[in-house]
Amino acid sequence: MKQIYAEFLGTTILVFLGNSVVANVLLSKTKCSNKNNDTSIGWLTISFGWALAVFMGVLVAYPYSGAHLNPCVTISYAMIGKIPWNIVPFYITSQFLGSMLGSIMVWLLYKDYFHETDSKQIKLSIFSTSPSIKNKLHNFFSEVLSTFTFIFISLYVTIEGVIHFQEIEYTIGLGTLGALPSSLIILGVILSLGGSTGPAINPARDLGPRIIHSILPIHGKGSSDWDYSWIPVLGPLTGSILATSLYIFLLN
Amino acid sequence: MKQIYAEFLGTTILVFLGNSVVANVLLSKTKCSNKNNDTSIGWLTISFGWALAVFMGVLVAYPYSGAHLNPCVTISYAMIGKIPWNIVPFYITSQFLGSMLGSIMVWLLYKDYFHETDSKQIKLSIFSTSPSIKNKLHNFFSEVLSTFTFIFISLYVTIEGVIHFQEIEYTIGLGTLGALPSSLIILGVILSLGGSTGPAINPARDLGPRIIHSILPIHGKGSSDWDYSWIPVLGPLTGSILATSLYIFLLN
Amino acid sequence: MKQIYAEFLGTTILVFLGNSVVANVLLSKTKCSNKNNDTSIGWLTISFGWALAVFMGVLVAYPYSGAHLNPCVTISYAMIGKIPWNIVPFYITSQFLGSMLGSIMVWLLYKDYFHETDSKQIKLSIFSTSPSIKNKLHNFFSEVLSTFTFIFISLYVTIEGVIHFQEIEYTIGLGTLGALPSSLIILGVILSLGGSTGPAINPARDLGPRIIHSILPIHGKGSSDWDYSWIPVLGPLTGSILATSLYIFLLN
Amino acid sequence: MKQIYAEFLGTTILVFLGNSVVANVLLSKTKCSNKNNDTSIGWLTISFGWALAVFMGVLVAYPYSGAHLNPCVTISYAMIGKIPWNIVPFYITSQFLGSMLGSIMVWLLYKDYFHETDSKQIKLSIFSTSPSIKNKLHNFFSEVLSTFTFIFISLYVTIEGVIHFQEIEYTIGLGTLGALPSSLIILGVILSLGGSTGPAINPARDLGPRIIHSILPIHGKGSSDWDYSWIPVLGPLTGSILATSLYIFLLN
Repeated sequence: MKQIYAEFLGTTILVFLGNSVVANVLLSKTKCSNKNNDTSIGWLTISFGWALAVFMGVLVAYPYSGAHLNPCVTISYAMIGKIPWNIVPFYITSQFLGSMLGSIMVWLLYKDYFHETDSKQIKLSIFSTSPSIKNKLHNFFSEVLSTFTFIFISLYVTIEGVIHFQEIEYTIGLGTLGALPSSLIILGVILSLGGSTGPAINPARDLGPRIIHSILPIHGKGSSDWDYSWIPVLGPLTGSILATSLYIFLLN
Repeated sequence: MKQIYAEFLGTTILVFLGNSVVANVLLSKTKCSNKNNDTSIGWLTISFGWALAVFMGVLVAYPYSGAHLNPCVTISYAMIGKIPWNIVPFYITSQFLGSMLGSIMVWLLYKDYFHETDSKQIKLSIFSTSPSIKNKLHNFFSEVLSTFTFIFISLYVTIEGVIHFQEIEYTIGLGTLGALPSSLIILGVILSLGGSTGPAINPARDLGPRIIHSILPIHGKGSSDWDYSWIPVLGPLTGSILATSLYIFLLN
Repeated sequence: MKQIYAEFLGTTILVFLGNSVVANVLLSKTKCSNKNNDTSIGWLTISFGWALAVFMGVLVAYPYSGAHLNPCVTISYAMIGKIPWNIVPFYITSQFLGSMLGSIMVWLLYKDYFHETDSKQIKLSIFSTSPSIKNKLHNFFSEVLSTFTFIFISLYVTIEGVIHFQEIEYTIGLGTLGALPSSLIILGVILSLGGSTGPAINPARDLGPRIIHSILPIHGKGSSDWDYSWIPVLGPLTGSILATSLYIFLLN
Repeated sequence: MKQIYAEFLGTTILVFLGNSVVANVLLSKTKCSNKNNDTSIGWLTISFGWALAVFMGVLVAYPYSGAHLNPCVTISYAMIGKIPWNIVPFYITSQFLGSMLGSIMVWLLYKDYFHETDSKQIKLSIFSTSPSIKNKLHNFFSEVLSTFTFIFISLYVTIEGVIHFQEIEYTIGLGTLGALPSSLIILGVILSLGGSTGPAINPARDLGPRIIHSILPIHGKGSSDWDYSWIPVLGPLTGSILATSLYIFLLN
């Protein structure tokens, strides 16, 4: 039970902080508003913000649930036998609910700034991802490849330290510093691979907030772009399954 | 006694370095002066500076006082029983005195640059926070939510490492690296949640310097905006109490 | 055998993520596109991206191969006796194949954005390095000096922690955090020493992708600048050999 | 003997990498050239570069000499009894020689770019610090206060971890990660306190390169500003002695 709560809380924190940095950069009149429309500095700031959102989500959830915060991670861990399959639906449900609550909180925090911003596209961007150049096949491929890379690398992360003493191996918990590697991986993946689709690399992070976008009475909102919505869901899932398969293959 | 000194010194360092980066970015003719008025890069720089101010304040104070440096943290720790309630007033007094001394030091360091700057608003910003869009109810909510998030996450931080050996758990001090998580949390909270009010998330950090602003003979200063001053005090306190209550509730 | 695979995978990750951040910054219409042509922010972003590419390449490969990911490191380690000379050709071959695969992946990920970009020079930059000011002798010297510095410093890195207990020294694995120092060294070397040639500091990272650039049907591509290609190969090798020689000399 | 070499090498690395990032940002036509004259992004980049220069200088020198790399640190450590006074002149001489060699290397690396740059002031900045607003008394005060803060905080850094086992305290070496705190302190001090004078906070870092500036045949160079040169020497020394005195006073 505790691990279900932890996934819910961790994903709420992840999406609240992650989408808030997008709001802070893209909406008008915020402290960090990208007035000169310099996408480079905007993207660097957003990448740092998302990386730290991961850091905080992981540090809260890790001791209880292992801090997946992403259906792709949950499925990957089930494939390698780290968690039982029967817990997967509960994890994924919590992640979706958390991402929905997180994105409601972003809207509540930045409501006045939504009013100051005209662009419908920007308003959607604070909930869900969208590609720089629309090209469904290529966008799908981009999500597959980004998530493949993220999941494959994550499978090699070792959160704990280790010491060998009298032929026994002891595990060393590194405290909250153990949440740092996941955060740095996300920073690198967004900076390098995010140029095309955003990227979601997490179906809950994208679909949950998109549902909220379509429901909330956001001032001057436009389409929730349902047409695109399957890509940041199926792309990441495909990438995750392929990466985990390769990992299992290489292990043997 | 030592812990009272440590809180005083830590908060002095926190506010001196934290408000100095604001001065370096916002005042005219400094090395880091935001000449092109690019709020995105300004905010990124300020966020890093504040995060490192936390790093340094914590590393000095932690071994002696636990490095609260913030009345919200002190009250939260008293609520969960980590410190006795009777020490709370001494901690909070030290934090206020430290934040006042720290902000005097900022003024002394950047005095010539206050002369070069016209904006009364900028001069106040180097002492205390102010909202991007004035809306008292929403600004209050923003401070509550930011501090809620900060305190809730901070309660899950584990500064030390741990190793299990022959059924006993040994704690591992990680040296000054243990101050890193608090610093990263602040970086993330400012980048993501700071777009609306600044944010204070610390009554001492805001009210102490505001008092100093109203007293010091700052060249061409304007109003200390007392009208707004209760928000970065009561908002953080409310957020802290709510977050700690939720933490206690979840623990049981 | 496993170590050969690890070098291949690690270098693939290194070049895929490293050159992808260059694509994200330099190509048109990406999320991080440097629209205002601000080379300072562009270079800062690229430096962070490359540093994190190193972080991820190292974390995957380190437990299996020691994560050289660079012929200069392999030759240096053979010189100091850390690895046998007869394994060197296998390591270097893997690194070249990995860098070639990595750069193909960059092209696949950013293909639509190559179409949107006119500059032939930018298209080449996403594969291989080129100097700011062409001056072969000085460019060669720049690669020698950058790589000298990188290799010399890297030879002093200690990835593991250590504890002395009852007169015996025990090594402590710090998990994935152990990949951080290499990443920070690359960040510093690129930020400080990269102003002139790029810099490659790694023959595989430069020559492998240059071969791919000359082969792939890249939209509107120009010359692969073979004229310059020997500098980011021989410069780094020279720098590496000199640095390792100095290290060996100082050790005695 | 080894510790003298280590200080020399460490300070060479520190000044070579530290002043190189200044060259990369300020000179014309480099990869990171600050074309839009945006001092905020320039300063952020320079701060990161200097912080990483410290990281690398410390990681090389620490195991042999304790990595002072700064006469202020050496004098402070002698005052608290960490090193004997009779070794102080040897340390300081090495630091000056290292800083001189380091700044020659910067010039060799960026020679072509000195030719492309007109400003005499910028050319000097790549060697030594200069204030934003000339005001000798205040500039002196700024150096005192910056160095005071740096030295005072540094005295509280603990590079090693610690574990208590059967009533004995064992020290844990954290490998190269132990160099991180010093690097982060410099990052914070430069970002926050550097707006006025640069700042030197290290007499060797400023005077050594200034001597080199006056000697080298730099294309189109101007005055070495000897008039100002005593401030970044006496200011830091004063700040260091005051900070160490306060530290000793607080310890008792």
